[in-house]
Amino acid sequence: MSKTFNEIVLEHLDEAAKKVNLDPDCYVRMKQPERELKVSIPVRMDDGHVDVFTGYRVQHSTSRGPCKGGIRYHPDVTLDEVKALAMLMTWKCAVVNIPYGGAKGAVRCNPMEMSESELVRLTRRYTVMIMPIIGRQKDIPAPDVGTDEDTMGWMMDTVSMFQGQTVLDMVTGKPVSLGGSLGRREATGRGVMICTLEILKKFGKDISATTVAVQGFGNVGSVAADLLAEKGCKVVAVGDVTGGYYNPKGLDIKGMIEHATKHPFKLLEGYECNGTSRISNEELLTLDVDVLAPCALERQIVKRNAADVRAKFIVAGANGPVSRMAREYFRTKGL
Amino acid sequence: MSKTFNEIVLEHLDEAAKKVNLDPDCYVRMKQPERELKVSIPVRMDDGHVDVFTGYRVQHSTSRGPCKGGIRYHPDVTLDEVKALAMLMTWKCAVVNIPYGGAKGAVRCNPMEMSESELVRLTRRYTVMIMPIIGRQKDIPAPDVGTDEDTMGWMMDTVSMFQGQTVLDMVTGKPVSLGGSLGRREATGRGVMICTLEILKKFGKDISATTVAVQGFGNVGSVAADLLAEKGCKVVAVGDVTGGYYNPKGLDIKGMIEHATKHPFKLLEGYECNGTSRISNEELLTLDVDVLAPCALERQIVKRNAADVRAKFIVAGANGPVSRMAREYFRTKGL
Amino acid sequence: MSKTFNEIVLEHLDEAAKKVNLDPDCYVRMKQPERELKVSIPVRMDDGHVDVFTGYRVQHSTSRGPCKGGIRYHPDVTLDEVKALAMLMTWKCAVVNIPYGGAKGAVRCNPMEMSESELVRLTRRYTVMIMPIIGRQKDIPAPDVGTDEDTMGWMMDTVSMFQGQTVLDMVTGKPVSLGGSLGRREATGRGVMICTLEILKKFGKDISATTVAVQGFGNVGSVAADLLAEKGCKVVAVGDVTGGYYNPKGLDIKGMIEHATKHPFKLLEGYECNGTSRISNEELLTLDVDVLAPCALERQIVKRNAADVRAKFIVAGANGPVSRMAREYFRTKGL
Amino acid sequence: MSKTFNEIVLEHLDEAAKKVNLDPDCYVRMKQPERELKVSIPVRMDDGHVDVFTGYRVQHSTSRGPCKGGIRYHPDVTLDEVKALAMLMTWKCAVVNIPYGGAKGAVRCNPMEMSESELVRLTRRYTVMIMPIIGRQKDIPAPDVGTDEDTMGWMMDTVSMFQGQTVLDMVTGKPVSLGGSLGRREATGRGVMICTLEILKKFGKDISATTVAVQGFGNVGSVAADLLAEKGCKVVAVGDVTGGYYNPKGLDIKGMIEHATKHPFKLLEGYECNGTSRISNEELLTLDVDVLAPCALERQIVKRNAADVRAKFIVAGANGPVSRMAREYFRTKGL
Amino acid sequence: MSKTFNEIVLEHLDEAAKKVNLDPDCYVRMKQPERELKVSIPVRMDDGHVDVFTGYRVQHSTSRGPCKGGIRYHPDVTLDEVKALAMLMTWKCAVVNIPYGGAKGAVRCNPMEMSESELVRLTRRYTVMIMPIIGRQKDIPAPDVGTDEDTMGWMMDTVSMFQGQTVLDMVTGKPVSLGGSLGRREATGRGVMICTLEILKKFGKDISATTVAVQGFGNVGSVAADLLAEKGCKVVAVGDVTGGYYNPKGLDIKGMIEHATKHPFKLLEGYECNGTSRISNEELLTLDVDVLAPCALERQIVKRNAADVRAKFIVAGANGPVSRMAREYFRTKGL
Amino acid sequence: MSKTFNEIVLEHLDEAAKKVNLDPDCYVRMKQPERELKVSIPVRMDDGHVDVFTGYRVQHSTSRGPCKGGIRYHPDVTLDEVKALAMLMTWKCAVVNIPYGGAKGAVRCNPMEMSESELVRLTRRYTVMIMPIIGRQKDIPAPDVGTDEDTMGWMMDTVSMFQGQTVLDMVTGKPVSLGGSLGRREATGRGVMICTLEILKKFGKDISATTVAVQGFGNVGSVAADLLAEKGCKVVAVGDVTGGYYNPKGLDIKGMIEHATKHPFKLLEGYECNGTSRISNEELLTLDVDVLAPCALERQIVKRNAADVRAKFIVAGANGPVSRMAREYFRTKGL
Repeated sequence: MSKTFNEIVLEHLDEAAKKVNLDPDCYVRMKQPERELKVSIPVRMDDGHVDVFTGYRVQHSTSRGPCKGGIRYHPDVTLDEVKALAMLMTWKCAVVNIPYGGAKGAVRCNPMEMSESELVRLTRRYTVMIMPIIGRQKDIPAPDVGTDEDTMGWMMDTVSMFQGQTVLDMVTGKPVSLGGSLGRREATGRGVMICTLEILKKFGKDISATTVAVQGFGNVGSVAADLLAEKGCKVVAVGDVTGGYYNPKGLDIKGMIEHATKHPFKLLEGYECNGTSRISNEELLTLDVDVLAPCALERQIVKRNAADVRAKFIVAGANGPVSRMAREYFRTKGL
Repeated sequence: MSKTFNEIVLEHLDEAAKKVNLDPDCYVRMKQPERELKVSIPVRMDDGHVDVFTGYRVQHSTSRGPCKGGIRYHPDVTLDEVKALAMLMTWKCAVVNIPYGGAKGAVRCNPMEMSESELVRLTRRYTVMIMPIIGRQKDIPAPDVGTDEDTMGWMMDTVSMFQGQTVLDMVTGKPVSLGGSLGRREATGRGVMICTLEILKKFGKDISATTVAVQGFGNVGSVAADLLAEKGCKVVAVGDVTGGYYNPKGLDIKGMIEHATKHPFKLLEGYECNGTSRISNEELLTLDVDVLAPCALERQIVKRNAADVRAKFIVAGANGPVSRMAREYFRTKGL
Repeated sequence: MSKTFNEIVLEHLDEAAKKVNLDPDCYVRMKQPERELKVSIPVRMDDGHVDVFTGYRVQHSTSRGPCKGGIRYHPDVTLDEVKALAMLMTWKCAVVNIPYGGAKGAVRCNPMEMSESELVRLTRRYTVMIMPIIGRQKDIPAPDVGTDEDTMGWMMDTVSMFQGQTVLDMVTGKPVSLGGSLGRREATGRGVMICTLEILKKFGKDISATTVAVQGFGNVGSVAADLLAEKGCKVVAVGDVTGGYYNPKGLDIKGMIEHATKHPFKLLEGYECNGTSRISNEELLTLDVDVLAPCALERQIVKRNAADVRAKFIVAGANGPVSRMAREYFRTKGL
Repeated sequence: MSKTFNEIVLEHLDEAAKKVNLDPDCYVRMKQPERELKVSIPVRMDDGHVDVFTGYRVQHSTSRGPCKGGIRYHPDVTLDEVKALAMLMTWKCAVVNIPYGGAKGAVRCNPMEMSESELVRLTRRYTVMIMPIIGRQKDIPAPDVGTDEDTMGWMMDTVSMFQGQTVLDMVTGKPVSLGGSLGRREATGRGVMICTLEILKKFGKDISATTVAVQGFGNVGSVAADLLAEKGCKVVAVGDVTGGYYNPKGLDIKGMIEHATKHPFKLLEGYECNGTSRISNEELLTLDVDVLAPCALERQIVKRNAADVRAKFIVAGANGPVSRMAREYFRTKGL
Repeated sequence: MSKTFNEIVLEHLDEAAKKVNLDPDCYVRMKQPERELKVSIPVRMDDGHVDVFTGYRVQHSTSRGPCKGGIRYHPDVTLDEVKALAMLMTWKCAVVNIPYGGAKGAVRCNPMEMSESELVRLTRRYTVMIMPIIGRQKDIPAPDVGTDEDTMGWMMDTVSMFQGQTVLDMVTGKPVSLGGSLGRREATGRGVMICTLEILKKFGKDISATTVAVQGFGNVGSVAADLLAEKGCKVVAVGDVTGGYYNPKGLDIKGMIEHATKHPFKLLEGYECNGTSRISNEELLTLDVDVLAPCALERQIVKRNAADVRAKFIVAGANGPVSRMAREYFRTKGL
Repeated sequence: MSKTFNEIVLEHLDEAAKKVNLDPDCYVRMKQPERELKVSIPVRMDDGHVDVFTGYRVQHSTSRGPCKGGIRYHPDVTLDEVKALAMLMTWKCAVVNIPYGGAKGAVRCNPMEMSESELVRLTRRYTVMIMPIIGRQKDIPAPDVGTDEDTMGWMMDTVSMFQGQTVLDMVTGKPVSLGGSLGRREATGRGVMICTLEILKKFGKDISATTVAVQGFGNVGSVAADLLAEKGCKVVAVGDVTGGYYNPKGLDIKGMIEHATKHPFKLLEGYECNGTSRISNEELLTLDVDVLAPCALERQIVKRNAADVRAKFIVAGANGPVSRMAREYFRTKGL
């Protein structure tokens, strides 16, 4: 049976602990999260009946400061996955040396099949249930897969109503009009663009001669594709859950963004354009491009398909899209 | 594979829901606890190294008022069991119509192998970790298997120190000298005695001719045995984890209590007395007595041994000592 | 132009102040309430549009302790009326010497034309808006005209949710199942009955020969009528907003209560019975009975109709049903 | 009968709502303030007796963040006026896009006839009465007509004493020595100067050839006059409640400020200077100047006197000094 | 040099610790108070200038629960004395087994030379300064020498105003009209009477033949004298700071109380009555009476005058009126 | 008998008050601290027994904002000294015009003879005891003699644990990794260097020809010496509690720092170097150097040794190292 995501993340911890000769008293505390909270979220659905959803908030470590981490709405989300992502957040914060620890939250639901008012009620109730352990100096949520700045706005409004005052600092990633940060939405995608350009510079590549494939066309992927195209790269492929879109001469990213904006879930579904053909997401990952930017979910490039990847550079925009085995493989191959 | 405790408890819920034609919107909310909190509890052990224990606090329902429920220290405790016990607490409170909901807590540890100072550190840290969700109007812990009034005193002291004031109402079952209730320690055992006498009265039995076997010799069993003997019953058998003790002429309960008091874990280990022989706990349950009072753990009389029980009356002092299958069996037999 | 209710109440204050030679520094503080809070209450109605209702909470005095006073839902409620009622509450509390001051709240709405879910949303939002100034040690609401124990339950639940804990003591008159007091619902009506019997005793009247007319058939009037009938009085007339019901041989009060219970707004509308005829509410007040118990709204017996009242005794179950001019008239007449 | 200030402001809202086709659910919420709090303020006067003053705090909207708005001490202040000003604050904050909503407070009193110690006691008690609804994240007062930085210092000190700690962020416009902002006192007057210069630039006017009349010589008017004179404008007229002062060759503003500073209420009363003659405030508004800067109270240029205004530009330093009718008139005239 | 009060109290502790073989870790913690807070209390006096008074609040022990102890206003009060009295309070609470620890407060001032308004301002400011460490679950003040129920009312009002709600439970000994306990004022004096009667009963003495001298005529002494006289004792002498009053046939206690009530400081000054002569306080202590009840201050019967005491029984109504040396002397003499 | 430190500081206050003609109402409030808190700190020592230490926190003034001041661990610390230092902090904050008042804390203990775990327990308990009066808006501790950034980290962690959240702003001088300020540790020493260079510039001295003696080699002295050497001065003498070190050609400051870093208490003990001889601390103060920088404790240059000081400039890095008499002496001498 294959390992769970958390088991894999723990292997990384073991590997690192061994390398830095980590104090056992410290190691044993880092192996598991400080708090795992699981909550029942009764929601009256639009048809009048009550559904009870399951929500999580896992806080891995508060040793370096308050926790920080996104909230995921996904039908297949598991506690195992949330624990793994919370631990990764601790490491991310530590690596960039900001005074925060790692957390992650999730609700097991399918936001694509729920109405906005159902999502509002779900989010408000979930917020109430985890309220005792979040806050500016405790744990600060943020958007993740399946949630966005509206979700954060609903969370902020719930906390503000409950406290009878405006509470801006209990969540990041909220709408700019409610005090969110300018540039926040594009930050991850912009990071992908900046890293890509830095790599090209380091290896003396010509930007305008560089071909790019981007997996994912949400907040991260669409911005990364857009900014890379603006900088002169030839973005030849992008994809989302509706499949991949390929144009060897470069895609019309701005047009694709405009198309997705009109789609109820901001998908590329139905996008057509001269010169642009459809490919599968699997094909996208193995295109013969200079740069492959996986900007969707974790564990896309794994042992199984690592050998097929033909891109010269992989720039990761998602959380852990390249598995440890795949990295091992690339390392062995001297890549 | 046998059912878990929680699965069995859920079967009871299903059965009851069907009988009262429970509103589905209500049923779906009662099926799972409102909150499950799992915490990591790092404790510096007396030898200097750090152990990380796992603790739980499960709140099943706050619909009728704050939660109420014990805290169990046991090496085999599972989340499944804690969830089942929390739900049972909701029902117990509702049945006696007090305005509380059900909760349960636990720490996976072996209190018999830990020093007092380790237990103090464990309890203080566990209290700190669950502090955001407990309190007078939220959830009020109490002692359970493996914890006692000292544990409650440590919890109360931890909360009092953190608040900088004396907080009496966050825990029940604390020492009388710290504001605990008189008679609290003996309450469950006294209840067993009262129920037994009421049953005997109803069925016109002579108290002095009644033989009793008590499983368990802790807070519940020893008090029940003692009070029943005081009232004139012939307590012919008692038992604890060290096995059963049998005297067809009636045991010297006061002497046995005195013996247990001196034992480090208040066990009967090593007790000897003329006329008293040793039996197994399994034998104790099937003795030919008038009253069998299981006062130890849950699920002692189950499908497997129900047919062997010879007692005329079973008076339950533990939480759920008779399984649903066993009850079904007795019902079928017209017992 | 006729005087407002508050102007009349202030005249009472002036009169009393003169009699007790009240210190002017004290008098000037008692003339107006300490705080008047007016709030906008946006409510999404069942048809989807938003209505904005106006709510009030007036606190007349906190000199003797926290405030206490009901919450009225009525389409014609005015700030003037709420201020008058708040001041009356101060005096009521002082007269019976309980350590509370007076307050009153209201929402301008017609609860008879709103669905329960609209009323729930209205009540929850109103509670949130006045939350900063209410609470166990500040000001404790209660039911009044147009609100009942359900309203109080919704208020209590709103505060409990906002605090994340069970808050019992922020409201009186809540359902018994949520911690309300036994006998609370019948208390005012029972008081009318007790006062009536005391008066009859004082004046040596025979209970069974006493005829009674009761104005109002809500929480106060129906209980008063029922208990007076139980004690042996002949209740010959009762009335509510649907008019009066008269039977010189005595009404079947229990039957009328049963009838009202089935009515959507608990009214007598459509009640019929052999020997019972319909009269107007105006006629009811001037019946030739021994006891007239006005148990509806304030200012029913006023200058205009005082001379027509034929009852020997008036026992007031409402707040201020007899105007100052009417009392003056009775006094002049030596009544 | 003429319209009230609030009625006029509501007409503006209607006009704007029509233009932007405002959602009715939104419009109905913006028409009235969220909260109106009216409080009684008993103050022991210097002669020993108690006066009870009436205070207000109206919060129009918290949709965009905490409320913000001044506190006015004036003998003629009305709730109508405070409501209008609170709504204007919501619009002002929204127009300059800062995350605040609008509020306004007032006490009906004549600060010019009260001693400082009476004002201190009045302010402290008023602060206590509105304390439950103000604060950094709720509603932040500021000075207005009749109040100044000292008033804000007393408010801040009251809140700080009550919390037992220094609370800087509950009020703006406090003394610089207590944490107030540098330049805050002069900000409005400086804005008048900047706007004037921008207008002159846009229309190609020569600054040194520009004549200016300033109505009001308080915090706004005196600073505006002073800075405009510094920049080279010829300030030919200023005025305060003691009337207008006119010098066609330009007034000695610095000298007038010096004079006013020595006056108990900082008025120009008694100011005399060669070449400077006295005019009425009404005359001041209709002087033949290039720029007229009304920096006193609202509604100075109205339908009645609009036709007489001869200034080429009106730069408003007060809140709403030009009425809607007057603006209508100017628009019609093509001005 | 003579020992300080605290040194003497510490000797008692040493003596007791030796007798019960007190654990040194415990002893060392009981030797000094947990917290000593000294505060400066600036008060604007009636003549306009500011005096700065010194206040104390000493908390000796919170081991058994919140602290409890009076507040003394006296011109000669010292920190040493306050520490001693705080420790005595710990012992008093422990001896009667109530779950409180000991505290004591004081302000160095002469309440007899201050106006009521000065005392109000002093008390309010003192309350504010010690507010962080007092409260229902922390430390609960009470009246003592120089303070009374009015002082407690001012303290309660200060805390209530600061919290914006009625706070009854932060002080005992407040006026009955503000929630104080019935019988509280007379409690200590009644205790003196009860103890006296119990002693007389034990030694078979005839009440009506018993002569009594009471030192002190404040809350304790006047009540003790009054109740003892009511029970039939012959109270032959009482005294206050104005000296002693002696009548071998029994004093008219009710008349003396009436006299004192009219005195500005409730003293006996100027009391005259046939048969009643004046004696010194020193003489009072050595009268040949059956019972001597010292109900004034600590350390009245000391080594110096112990041999002169002729009373058969001493019933102490003050805190520590008999010194350790005096008790030693009586013990040696076999008394 | 010589004056206490506080008496001397009060003399400075008197002198200053006279010069600025200070309002007596203000003066009388500045003469004594607002609050003096003395606490008992029981600590279980490593050998198992309990020691009770005495701690202080004195808050001199909150008139200009929250208090600010260090915490000193020293075996000889007295309340008198802590009061004096608290008052000096008020003046320091006022002189540099930051909105803070002065405070000081201390624990009477010898940190050099305690293990780290004992110090941790001492600091945690001391923090708990003073917690009610410290905090971001009340009083913010900092390191002083005998405490360092670790001590502040322990204090911050204690407060954070008690509040259940990360509390950064309750202490300054914490480790950079826990949110401390960059450059904080070196700030005082750097100030000494900057002042020295400014003086040299003003008097036209050549930096490279300037000789310097630094008393103290802790956080202040070692940094001052190091930076002055870096800037080109010839640092010929430094000293700490182990005595003075002298090299007329200039010391190797970096080498000395390296040596001290390895010493358990960061002392120079055992430092040896060619050309460097040992002198006494007394000799150090009287060396013939250009600049003498006393960077150790208060009152080093006093009446007794002032005449012997040969340095041309004294730059004070400690709190009050030059006594008032010494300054008087220098002034008289025209220095």
